[in-house]
Amino acid sequence: MSLRNLFLRSLAHHNKLVKIAPCVSAVQNLKYNNYEEKNEWFYYNRKIATALLSAVVISTVQDDQNSKNEKDTLIDAGAKRPDLPTFRAEEVSKHDNKESFWVIYKYGVYDVTSFLPSHPGGEQIMNAAGYSIEPFWNVYGMHKTQEVYKLLESYRIGNLHDDDVADYSDDELWVKEPYRDKRLIVKTAKPFNAEIPPQYQIAHFDTPNELFYVRQHMPVPELSEEEHTVTVTIVGDGTSTISLTLQDIERFPQVTVRAALMCAGNRRSEMNKVKPVKGLSWQAGAISCATWRGALLRDVLLACGLDPRDPRNVERHIIFTGADIDATGTHFSTSLPLNAALAADAQVLLATHMNGERLPLDHGYPLRVVVPGAPAVRSVKWLQGITISTEESPSHWHQKDYRSFNPSKTWETADFSTAPPVYSLPVTSAVCQPLDGDTVTADDGHIDIKGYAYSGGGAKILRVDVSLNGGASWEEAELVTDPAPPRRHYAWALWSARLRLPDPKASTVDIWVKATDSNFNTQPENFDHIWNIRGILSNAYNKIKVNIKH
Amino acid sequence: MSLRNLFLRSLAHHNKLVKIAPCVSAVQNLKYNNYEEKNEWFYYNRKIATALLSAVVISTVQDDQNSKNEKDTLIDAGAKRPDLPTFRAEEVSKHDNKESFWVIYKYGVYDVTSFLPSHPGGEQIMNAAGYSIEPFWNVYGMHKTQEVYKLLESYRIGNLHDDDVADYSDDELWVKEPYRDKRLIVKTAKPFNAEIPPQYQIAHFDTPNELFYVRQHMPVPELSEEEHTVTVTIVGDGTSTISLTLQDIERFPQVTVRAALMCAGNRRSEMNKVKPVKGLSWQAGAISCATWRGALLRDVLLACGLDPRDPRNVERHIIFTGADIDATGTHFSTSLPLNAALAADAQVLLATHMNGERLPLDHGYPLRVVVPGAPAVRSVKWLQGITISTEESPSHWHQKDYRSFNPSKTWETADFSTAPPVYSLPVTSAVCQPLDGDTVTADDGHIDIKGYAYSGGGAKILRVDVSLNGGASWEEAELVTDPAPPRRHYAWALWSARLRLPDPKASTVDIWVKATDSNFNTQPENFDHIWNIRGILSNAYNKIKVNIKH
Repeated sequence: MSLRNLFLRSLAHHNKLVKIAPCVSAVQNLKYNNYEEKNEWFYYNRKIATALLSAVVISTVQDDQNSKNEKDTLIDAGAKRPDLPTFRAEEVSKHDNKESFWVIYKYGVYDVTSFLPSHPGGEQIMNAAGYSIEPFWNVYGMHKTQEVYKLLESYRIGNLHDDDVADYSDDELWVKEPYRDKRLIVKTAKPFNAEIPPQYQIAHFDTPNELFYVRQHMPVPELSEEEHTVTVTIVGDGTSTISLTLQDIERFPQVTVRAALMCAGNRRSEMNKVKPVKGLSWQAGAISCATWRGALLRDVLLACGLDPRDPRNVERHIIFTGADIDATGTHFSTSLPLNAALAADAQVLLATHMNGERLPLDHGYPLRVVVPGAPAVRSVKWLQGITISTEESPSHWHQKDYRSFNPSKTWETADFSTAPPVYSLPVTSAVCQPLDGDTVTADDGHIDIKGYAYSGGGAKILRVDVSLNGGASWEEAELVTDPAPPRRHYAWALWSARLRLPDPKASTVDIWVKATDSNFNTQPENFDHIWNIRGILSNAYNKIKVNIKH
Repeated sequence: MSLRNLFLRSLAHHNKLVKIAPCVSAVQNLKYNNYEEKNEWFYYNRKIATALLSAVVISTVQDDQNSKNEKDTLIDAGAKRPDLPTFRAEEVSKHDNKESFWVIYKYGVYDVTSFLPSHPGGEQIMNAAGYSIEPFWNVYGMHKTQEVYKLLESYRIGNLHDDDVADYSDDELWVKEPYRDKRLIVKTAKPFNAEIPPQYQIAHFDTPNELFYVRQHMPVPELSEEEHTVTVTIVGDGTSTISLTLQDIERFPQVTVRAALMCAGNRRSEMNKVKPVKGLSWQAGAISCATWRGALLRDVLLACGLDPRDPRNVERHIIFTGADIDATGTHFSTSLPLNAALAADAQVLLATHMNGERLPLDHGYPLRVVVPGAPAVRSVKWLQGITISTEESPSHWHQKDYRSFNPSKTWETADFSTAPPVYSLPVTSAVCQPLDGDTVTADDGHIDIKGYAYSGGGAKILRVDVSLNGGASWEEAELVTDPAPPRRHYAWALWSARLRLPDPKASTVDIWVKATDSNFNTQPENFDHIWNIRGILSNAYNKIKVNIKH
């Protein structure tokens, strides 16, 4: 049987031909709007093929067996079930406790709350709360039996959304993915993208490493601090190349910089409500703060022979290349204007440490760039190349993403080649406690509200105003900020306010928050006029509604 | 007759007792909200007293004369005429041409258009177009006769608003005021505050010196470049003082910085429409741009022995004192955090030149500070003192003004001691052509629109969006910007757009403009939630309505 016939037979067998065919055709004809999307489609496409082929194998086995006993039919654990509802990974991740305990296996979503007391491995199962059990089963292979599959399927409640399905097979690209803290809110599993839950954002000024939000474009590469090198290339008359080991970099004066890193798409889900945008539907959890340690990139560049007074610098860029590669073998890369790294006060780090520990695998081990005040995409992880050039990075991530347009630009009219790259971030803020839809108990007619605020480019958060009456009146919140020199306020601010309810008997209240930074910029009131196709820079007032219990 | 009796008799004589008494009482009981206001009241108060006393003298003379001939009654030229309407200086300044030529004399406003051909001094009179003739008459004393007064009063059309009346008597504080270009739009004459007309803002990238907007707090001091010195005082263990001549300062490397200076109250008149604020009712003309030349303050401070690595710097301030004094003898003064002047990339200048010429008298001759990216108040003119201290400037201008509050703070609840001083400015923009209420001729269904945009703190203007349909769609304007390294974009951007009218038959169109800077901050849509008692940082969208002629 040819592969094609197997494929078609499988499709027919699974009665999905009508559904799958247009999808495959759509994949083939897709005009990719950006590379990330293409990349995601690539994996998705492969995932379809893999899933179908597995199905074919199973079906073929079944056909060949001509099994007489229906009970003995092989269980295809985790296969799609068109009769069941679809869940996002984010929704599943909320069911992470003994009251409601869901897990994922391939396409399957399972509510195993009632099974917990019977788990032969005891509390070990808690590690998979709201998450996929597949990586654990890959380690603990005893689960992979028809009996366990059958038991698992008896708890089946739904299907995982296609975009969130991870391939935990022995695919060489993904096999080295690190263990992730189960408290992270998984947005997509492959590449791994996860928010820090809001209650943990406000619990620490420096986010614990394991709770720092994760935004990957590709699989995490496997590197070692002993063998890792960074190649510095200066393009020009007689292009020169210098190779530096981690030990070389650690010989420079070690500097610490406290900086929040925020994805340019943080809070995209709120902008998405105005009109759909393309991109991961981040809520307010794509920002965390840490104290980073490493060498000043400026020091390294000077040691490599760059002259900060060279007039050519104005036209030059510094391109960072990561060790992470996409399915076509292309390395992640982006760039900054050279002077942003070479200016006398530039605080760009080649960082080896995060909150006093070696960088975790998910955050660039053993070496990453930290560009404080810039969107996190510029802080390239797993750094292996630095190139000084008159050109910006040619990569798709640099050229076709992280650029801003006005609300009238469409994917057809937006010209990425003339739009300025996003090298800094506007002032923003969010409520982390309570959350939209929460029920809060009023205390003597008051409620407590907490959250964060941040502004890029080294601007300090000077004021956070909170309103419980749609902006008719505003109260200043108490701020916790990091002391830093002017124009170097790279950390976030945490804030809290205890506010009197405007109507002591109302059953709901709207909470609005806006921040003002040291340039006295403040947030736009609504998303309408900052809306953009990619859903980045989504910094309008955070507006939520909560229920009040009296 | 006692002075008090003279005063009261004069009041009775002028039948103004009822109107003046509560006013005098109000002056006496005034709880000054800020020093500028107090200062203005001081002058105003004195002005009332002066005006009343002159009136008393005239009345007394009249009484004593018991004049038999009504025709011989002395003309009190420029006295208030309750029967006539009141005009603001700004309105008068628009009547500056041969079609409509108005002038001011004391409280009097005169339409002398028909007199122009008869003026014995010929075209000389054009210098006073839309302006006070009093300073010219002080020079050309032949005007000061009863005949000329009588002639003048025959052209009388109204009274000048109290706040705009200048005292051109031989008051020693004001006698040295420089000649000002008559094209400036006078907001208040004493102290002299005047906008650049919008058409001149967009006519030049570097504003010609004589058209640069003027914002004074006090009379212009008389200084000479030969004798002027600046005293640098470093407060601390063994306070040291260094005196520098202008020649000393000019021996440092000379640096040019292109920087717009903007009053923190620019566009206050738009915020004022939400709810009245206190302060000069600036339209969008309190910003201009120039290329400044001088020594880097950083270089001077290093030469004075300051160490940029001194950890005490974080807590220190640099206080600038001007030679301008108020009526109590207090010098103008304000301060910056020391590191803003001492950081490696700090571009704060001790400037001697403006657009290639020695500083004009109105702009700080012979020496001023230029703090690019900061509100213009920090760019202290007529600089005579620099003090390094652990305290901010104790002056009223620093402590009781140029601080920001949220919209709910009132003069009663605002705490200036805890509000952060405004050291930078948010992104803003304005339409300079056409103006609100103008009639524009549509050209093939299009109109041309021009204006400026600016952001403080060295942020570059990246995009200006214009909407003709209330934000339903936006078009990008063409920008003219100054090339500068990242974080050093201190100039403004000029922009222009040729836009298709959304409704080709409509008789009016709304124009909205908003700018986005390199931190991707943009302007708030409305003034409501940025409103503040002092009316500063008034940077919401500029929204105007124009008439369309087809």
